[in-house]
Amino acid sequence: MDAKPHAPVSPRVRATGAPPIPAARAWAARYDGRAGPEIDLTQAVPGYPPHPELLERLAAAAGTRPAAGYGAIEGDAALREALAADMSGFYATPIAPDQTAITAGCNLAFAMAATTAAAPGEAVMLPAPWYFNHHMALTMQGVDTIPLPCRPEDGFVPDPATAERLLTPHTRAIVLVTPNNPTGAVYPPATIAAFAALCRRRGLWLILDETYRDFLPAGATAHDLFADPDWPDYLVHLYSFSKSYCIPGHRVGAIAAAGEFRAELLKVLDTMQICPPRAAQSALSWAIEGLRSWRAGNRTLMASRADVFRTAAGQLAGWRLDALGAYFAYLRLPPGLPDALATAERLATERGLASLPGPFFGPGQDRHLRLAFANVDATAIAQIPSRLG
Amino acid sequence: MDAKPHAPVSPRVRATGAPPIPAARAWAARYDGRAGPEIDLTQAVPGYPPHPELLERLAAAAGTRPAAGYGAIEGDAALREALAADMSGFYATPIAPDQTAITAGCNLAFAMAATTAAAPGEAVMLPAPWYFNHHMALTMQGVDTIPLPCRPEDGFVPDPATAERLLTPHTRAIVLVTPNNPTGAVYPPATIAAFAALCRRRGLWLILDETYRDFLPAGATAHDLFADPDWPDYLVHLYSFSKSYCIPGHRVGAIAAAGEFRAELLKVLDTMQICPPRAAQSALSWAIEGLRSWRAGNRTLMASRADVFRTAAGQLAGWRLDALGAYFAYLRLPPGLPDALATAERLATERGLASLPGPFFGPGQDRHLRLAFANVDATAIAQIPSRLG
Repeated sequence: MDAKPHAPVSPRVRATGAPPIPAARAWAARYDGRAGPEIDLTQAVPGYPPHPELLERLAAAAGTRPAAGYGAIEGDAALREALAADMSGFYATPIAPDQTAITAGCNLAFAMAATTAAAPGEAVMLPAPWYFNHHMALTMQGVDTIPLPCRPEDGFVPDPATAERLLTPHTRAIVLVTPNNPTGAVYPPATIAAFAALCRRRGLWLILDETYRDFLPAGATAHDLFADPDWPDYLVHLYSFSKSYCIPGHRVGAIAAAGEFRAELLKVLDTMQICPPRAAQSALSWAIEGLRSWRAGNRTLMASRADVFRTAAGQLAGWRLDALGAYFAYLRLPPGLPDALATAERLATERGLASLPGPFFGPGQDRHLRLAFANVDATAIAQIPSRLG
Repeated sequence: MDAKPHAPVSPRVRATGAPPIPAARAWAARYDGRAGPEIDLTQAVPGYPPHPELLERLAAAAGTRPAAGYGAIEGDAALREALAADMSGFYATPIAPDQTAITAGCNLAFAMAATTAAAPGEAVMLPAPWYFNHHMALTMQGVDTIPLPCRPEDGFVPDPATAERLLTPHTRAIVLVTPNNPTGAVYPPATIAAFAALCRRRGLWLILDETYRDFLPAGATAHDLFADPDWPDYLVHLYSFSKSYCIPGHRVGAIAAAGEFRAELLKVLDTMQICPPRAAQSALSWAIEGLRSWRAGNRTLMASRADVFRTAAGQLAGWRLDALGAYFAYLRLPPGLPDALATAERLATERGLASLPGPFFGPGQDRHLRLAFANVDATAIAQIPSRLG
C-alpha cells in the first residue's frame, strides 16, 4: 500500500506541554527511601479522608437506578439549589440556582468556560505563574495565552494596570485563580474588584476560579463581584467540590454564569459532558449544608498546616517563602542551587520530597518550587526543612 | 462606568446549534395526554434497568476512600485490562491495555479525540445525517465539518469513493458511527475496511465510534481493522459503557488508540478530565466479564424490539423505514405531511410521541424522523403506528 507514514496529530496538541504530575511522580518512583518515607507534595489532594456520612450517601446514591440514568445538562436541580444557597451566603448576595451549572470536574469547567469565552485565534490572559491545565486547555484549543507576569515582591498578586497595558485587540478574557494555584496567594478584594472593572470597561470576561475558596480564613470577604447586578455581563465563576469535600475521584465542579454566556455555555455542556456524574451530585446536595461545620473544621486544619509550614520554612537557610495560602506554598530556591527542574528532580530522587518545579507553571519560574502542603499532616510538614536543607 | 454592553461570546459557540433533546422535550411537555401515555423516543436510553449486582457494586465502590481520590489520567488499570480483553475477544485480535484509555463518557471521548486529530482551521468529514454532538464539538472547536451525504437508497451507508472525492487538503479525519446514530444503519465490514484503507492512503485519522457495538447481531463480525498491526497509525476507536451497561449517569466511555496519537491524547485527557469517575470504573472492571451473558440477553431483547418495530412500521401507510438497527429507526415521512420539524413537534404535542426530527442531524434530513425505539418495551412499540397514523 502506498501509505504515508501515519496521519498527523493536531499541531496545537503537539505544542501543548506534557502533563506535569506524572513527570514528577516518575522522579519520585526512583527514590530509594534513604531519607525516610516519601513526602508527596505534587498534587493538591486533601491529606484527610472524606466524611464517613458523605461516603455512605455516595454509596446509597450510586446504588439507585435514577443515578444510573441521564440527568439535566446543567446539573441536577437539588445540587444547583444547594450551591446557589451556599454561594448566596458566602458572597452575601443572592445567587439563583439557574445562574449555576454543575460540571464533570473543575478542569472541564475551565475548558468549557474558555471555549465559550474565546474562539481559536483569540487570546486569554493568564497571570504567570499559572495553573498548567489552564495553559494546556488554551493551547490545544488554538487560543493564545497572554502571560501577565506576577512579581515575588507583590506576593504574586497580579497588577490590573499591568494587565491593561498587556491587553491585545484579540483578548477576550482574563483568568484569576484565588486562592492561587500554584502560589497560594490570596488576592485582596480590591484587586479582584479592579480586574472586574477592567473587564467590564474593556468588554472582556473575567474567569474567576475559586476552587480553594472554602480554605480562605474564616470570616474573610473574598470579593463583592456578585453584588453588581450586571455581573452576568462580564463574570464567569468556577468552583470545585474536589477539595472542599475530598472527592476528586467523583469529578464534580461548577460554573456560575448567567444571561447570554450561560445560554451559550449550555451548548458546550451538552457536547462535552451531556450531564455531570449523578450519584455524586445527589450526595453533594446534602453535603453542602450537612458538612458545613466539617468544612469549617478543615479550613481551620489547613490554616494550622499553613502556620506549621511557615514556621518550618523560617528555619531554612537561603530559601524564601514568597507566597503561602490554602493548599500551596511557593518557595524560592537559595542562590547556590541548580535551577528548579534539576532541584525538584534531585529532591524527589535523593530526599524523597516530591514537589512541582516552577517551570511547569509558565515562564520566569526557574527559581521556584510549588509545595502542596495540604497533602500531608503537621508531622510530615515539620520534616520538610531537613529534606530541603 | 463607560461600559460596553457586555463581553462577546465565542463566535464559534454562537454558530453551534442548540442542544436538540431539551428542545424536543419542551414539545413533549405541552402534550395533554389525549392519545395515551407519552412515548419518549428522543434520547438513546435503554428501556430496562442496570443489573442489580452492578448497582450493588457501584454502591460498594462509591463508598470507599480510594474511589474518592484521584486516579490515573488514562483510567484505572483494572478497567483497561478488562476492556482490552473484551475487545481482543470481540475483534478476534489482541488489543493491549495500554492501547486503551477510559474517558468521562463517550461524548467527551469524541471531543478529546477530535481535538487531538484536528486543529482549528482544519476539517473533519462526517457522514450526514450525523450525531449532532459530533457536529457541535467540531463547530465550537473551530474545526470545519465536511458533510458526506448518505443516501436512503444505500440504507444510509456512506460511500468511500464519494468520501474521497469530497476530501480537502485540510481534512484530517473521517468519523464513522456504526451501528449508526441517528439512522441505526450497520455498516458492512467491507465498507469500514474501505474507509480504513482510504484513511491510511491519504494520511487521515479514522475515528470509529462503536458506542452500539454490543447490540450487533450475535456472532456478527464488526470489522477486521485491529488485525492490521499498523492500525495505530490511522485508527482511533470510541466506545461507551452507557448503553451496554445502562449507566449513562455514571459517565464512562473509552478510546482505543496507540502510538503517537495516544501519547498526545494523554495531554488532552489530563486537561479535560484529569481522571474519569472512579467508582464506576471499579464496578465496570467486574461487569465486563460478570455481565457478559446479561449483555448477550439484552442484545437479543433489542433485536426483538427491532423486529417488533419493523412489523409495526410495515402497517404505516406512506411512511418508509429507511434504516433500522441497534437503538434507532430512521423513518421517512409520507409525502403529504409537513416537514420533519413541524411533524415532530405535532407528534410530540398532539400524539404524545416524542422523537427527534431529521434536521437536528444535519443537512438534507427534512423528511426524516429518528425514533430511539430501544427506550420502550414491545407494548409501547406496538402503539407507535396508531400515534403516527
